[in-house]
Amino acid sequence: MTKIAIYDSTLRDGAQAQGISYSVEDKIKIVEQLDALGIRYIEAGNPGSNPKDLEFFARVAALPLKNAKIIAFGSTCKVGVAAAADANVRSLLQAGTKAIAVFGKSWDFHVTDILRTTLEENLRMIGDTVRYLKQRGMEVVFDAEHFFDGYKANAGYAMQTLAAAADAGADCLCLCDTNGGSFPEEIFAITQAVTERFQTAVGIHCHNDGEMAVANSLAAVRAGATQVQGTINGIGERCGNANLCSIVPNLQIKLGYGCLPAESLPRLTSLARYVSEIANLAPNDKAPFVGSHAFAHKGGMHIDAVNKAPTAYEHIDPELVGNRRTILMSEVAGRSTLLATINAIDPGVKRDSPETQRIMDRLKQLEHDGYQFETAESSFELVVRKELGKYQPFFELKQFKVIVNEPSFDGANSSAMIKIRVGDMEEITAAEGDGPVNALDNAVRKALERFYPAIKEMKLTDFKVRVLDSDMASAAKVRVLIESADQHESWTTIGVSTDVINASWLALVDAIEYKLVRDRERA
Amino acid sequence: MTKIAIYDSTLRDGAQAQGISYSVEDKIKIVEQLDALGIRYIEAGNPGSNPKDLEFFARVAALPLKNAKIIAFGSTCKVGVAAAADANVRSLLQAGTKAIAVFGKSWDFHVTDILRTTLEENLRMIGDTVRYLKQRGMEVVFDAEHFFDGYKANAGYAMQTLAAAADAGADCLCLCDTNGGSFPEEIFAITQAVTERFQTAVGIHCHNDGEMAVANSLAAVRAGATQVQGTINGIGERCGNANLCSIVPNLQIKLGYGCLPAESLPRLTSLARYVSEIANLAPNDKAPFVGSHAFAHKGGMHIDAVNKAPTAYEHIDPELVGNRRTILMSEVAGRSTLLATINAIDPGVKRDSPETQRIMDRLKQLEHDGYQFETAESSFELVVRKELGKYQPFFELKQFKVIVNEPSFDGANSSAMIKIRVGDMEEITAAEGDGPVNALDNAVRKALERFYPAIKEMKLTDFKVRVLDSDMASAAKVRVLIESADQHESWTTIGVSTDVINASWLALVDAIEYKLVRDRERA
Repeated sequence: MTKIAIYDSTLRDGAQAQGISYSVEDKIKIVEQLDALGIRYIEAGNPGSNPKDLEFFARVAALPLKNAKIIAFGSTCKVGVAAAADANVRSLLQAGTKAIAVFGKSWDFHVTDILRTTLEENLRMIGDTVRYLKQRGMEVVFDAEHFFDGYKANAGYAMQTLAAAADAGADCLCLCDTNGGSFPEEIFAITQAVTERFQTAVGIHCHNDGEMAVANSLAAVRAGATQVQGTINGIGERCGNANLCSIVPNLQIKLGYGCLPAESLPRLTSLARYVSEIANLAPNDKAPFVGSHAFAHKGGMHIDAVNKAPTAYEHIDPELVGNRRTILMSEVAGRSTLLATINAIDPGVKRDSPETQRIMDRLKQLEHDGYQFETAESSFELVVRKELGKYQPFFELKQFKVIVNEPSFDGANSSAMIKIRVGDMEEITAAEGDGPVNALDNAVRKALERFYPAIKEMKLTDFKVRVLDSDMASAAKVRVLIESADQHESWTTIGVSTDVINASWLALVDAIEYKLVRDRERA
Repeated sequence: MTKIAIYDSTLRDGAQAQGISYSVEDKIKIVEQLDALGIRYIEAGNPGSNPKDLEFFARVAALPLKNAKIIAFGSTCKVGVAAAADANVRSLLQAGTKAIAVFGKSWDFHVTDILRTTLEENLRMIGDTVRYLKQRGMEVVFDAEHFFDGYKANAGYAMQTLAAAADAGADCLCLCDTNGGSFPEEIFAITQAVTERFQTAVGIHCHNDGEMAVANSLAAVRAGATQVQGTINGIGERCGNANLCSIVPNLQIKLGYGCLPAESLPRLTSLARYVSEIANLAPNDKAPFVGSHAFAHKGGMHIDAVNKAPTAYEHIDPELVGNRRTILMSEVAGRSTLLATINAIDPGVKRDSPETQRIMDRLKQLEHDGYQFETAESSFELVVRKELGKYQPFFELKQFKVIVNEPSFDGANSSAMIKIRVGDMEEITAAEGDGPVNALDNAVRKALERFYPAIKEMKLTDFKVRVLDSDMASAAKVRVLIESADQHESWTTIGVSTDVINASWLALVDAIEYKLVRDRERA
């Protein structure tokens, strides 16, 4: 079985997509998930162009990664500057990774018309940079930018750029279809010419401008490439990068290559959704393999046939990638996944206990209503506790009223009045805030602190809103995710409603209750 | 130049997509647009399975189409029933079209295990149905369902099913990758085997389950197929059908085939958006060729290169398909990026004009405050217009007040009162809503419609909220992005505030003003 090194650039080239802006915390979470899946390389940022990335590299260096090598990404040294004297090249070493990717020009037109230097100087820049990094012990990937367009324009020169990198010791020559307009048969023929000529490993990096990034990546593998670069969900600038969520199952399930540990593939669908959530992008329902519609059947005849024999209208078994047949998607894919969570709370419950079925039914209902527990494990745990009878409410809401004024009134634009009940006691209070969610958050904490002083330890650390049914515009259902933290841990809760305030309220209540449940367990 | 007959199934196979349901009126509008573009065949429905379709066929027969033939779609006659006696086959003739597509089984497993009949009877059904329709003067396309899977399982039998159709006089043998899991090299080899054996024209019908429908369709054309079936925007069940919006420009612009009249291609982008609008689907910004991000540039280096030579990072000129280049503003973008946007509004402004500096300063201030214009071009354009003095406000906000009640009051949980001024006139009104943003949106539209009736054409299609400084939790700054659309285009606007209501308000005002500015330009 030929092994293929999967090289993820969700955090680097993916960040070039319109609308994407990761926090350092977001990037750490994605690295942990990619590593757990068994991804071989994670290209995580460009320390020379973005000061935020240096903070990230410092934090990621402390993570105990099991599978992945982190890659710092940057360009070759500048025209007329030695690699050792180039600030960007040196910043790559400061990232503290064991592997580095440097991109350089391989299209003569780009050298003469964009860099505005000589073809010889460009070869010097490539060789000098790769050699400098190799001498410092780095594993080096050379990204040959515009390689296919360059080869079509001047094959001899394009090959010389690869030779410059190979001779300097590059560990991998990655051929980039930077403009994304190549065809599979071109990619195949040109990659084959490269793999025949060089002993060095060859990689492929495609973009989707012709809607062929997946086919192009596979064509390169057929021609001998052994490293495939891409992003989760095909996130990337313009039309996106090659989509690893399609490439990996095509290679591993259908063509017999080895990309990920066998046990990882069934986690692909949940990884895809996790990354969408973190990136605050609506998941693509139509996405091959991992989309919620990918194995959905509508026509009556199709459904009948699928009932007779699933392969009648399915190219693979959806469970192989952790997806499932039907129209209503459940993130809690299987009963055994669910059982693990249940048994953490009540070890006595069995696979076929009535509780298990009841919880399954409740989760299906909530998912149908727009809940998604992939990222909101704490709300999920509270649902399970409620169904198991292992839950006592900490307080009861009697009512709240929130008022937003424009222009602001007495310095605050929002105020909230709230009335709650704890045991036999009632508390009514009010608070102001910057905006209605903040006012409500302040008011409920103020009301509860009298009963539960530990609430002061907790803070909200992130707040995300997603519209679920965008056809309904501002009256659509919204899903709010709230991330909270105290001195012990951080946790995420979810609320769904047609009203952003109500959805926030539901997520806020879960956040507070989760804190109080955990405190009681710790006590 | 080889001519390729483009065969659109947006209205038939596209209607199998989850969430799609066209009215008869919708279908008529789409037929008119496809015909105007020069599409050769429009597969419009299945008169046997859907009574609404018979009404549609009666209406479409009266349309004066210039280019397209309408196709009625159905299956071969049933097991044990003569074509002449089969109600579904006869309903195809009632549709009153000049051309008909019938699908039949070409995979032996489907014949024996799904139809549960003999291989011979299936050949009889195909031949009998095609012959019956040909005798009644129809042009007949035979859709060989699961042809590629069938060929891989039993090539001899798959070929016999085509021979049954060809011998009965079929005008085109269309090879279907029904489960969407084939690879381009398989499609190429198998299609070539068919084109070498049969004199009859060959078509290709692909699905996108492996994310290769476009590459697969092109592979079939290279192997001699001359009819390509697909849908606008790749709408279709599961992961969609082959996307004609990518196939046509790949074939015609890049590979030199003739698909559409030359003057039609620049209307492809607006057609794609029109169909999204009618189908009530959010347009795919990342769509190759026709998406609003397809020619968007973000990184400073890319932008610099694109300004030097557009082909540096673009595989085709966006104007060839009626799309346009967009330069995304971000911290990394420089003065030349900005100048391109300024000059689209005022060509007289120079790189070193005081206006340019003033706009740079203003943008830096806004970005520092949390604005991010790379996704919100329309807000960006409004900022530039304001600084250039090319902007007159359409209305002035005097005040608003939003109230959220829990529990709900009289069925609505939110209400908004708003007072605005337009010229010398004031308007004060109120509206309810599902949540405060919806209530405010409803109130401001109600107040403005009296002055600007065109606001009714516009709708909000997406709404995203992101917390900027998550350490501040619910009092943190939030960034709201609102996506709006009318019959012409879609646009995104931004608002930043510590208050989600205020941020939404700012984005909402920009959305409305952008609509009114563009309407004035179009007038």
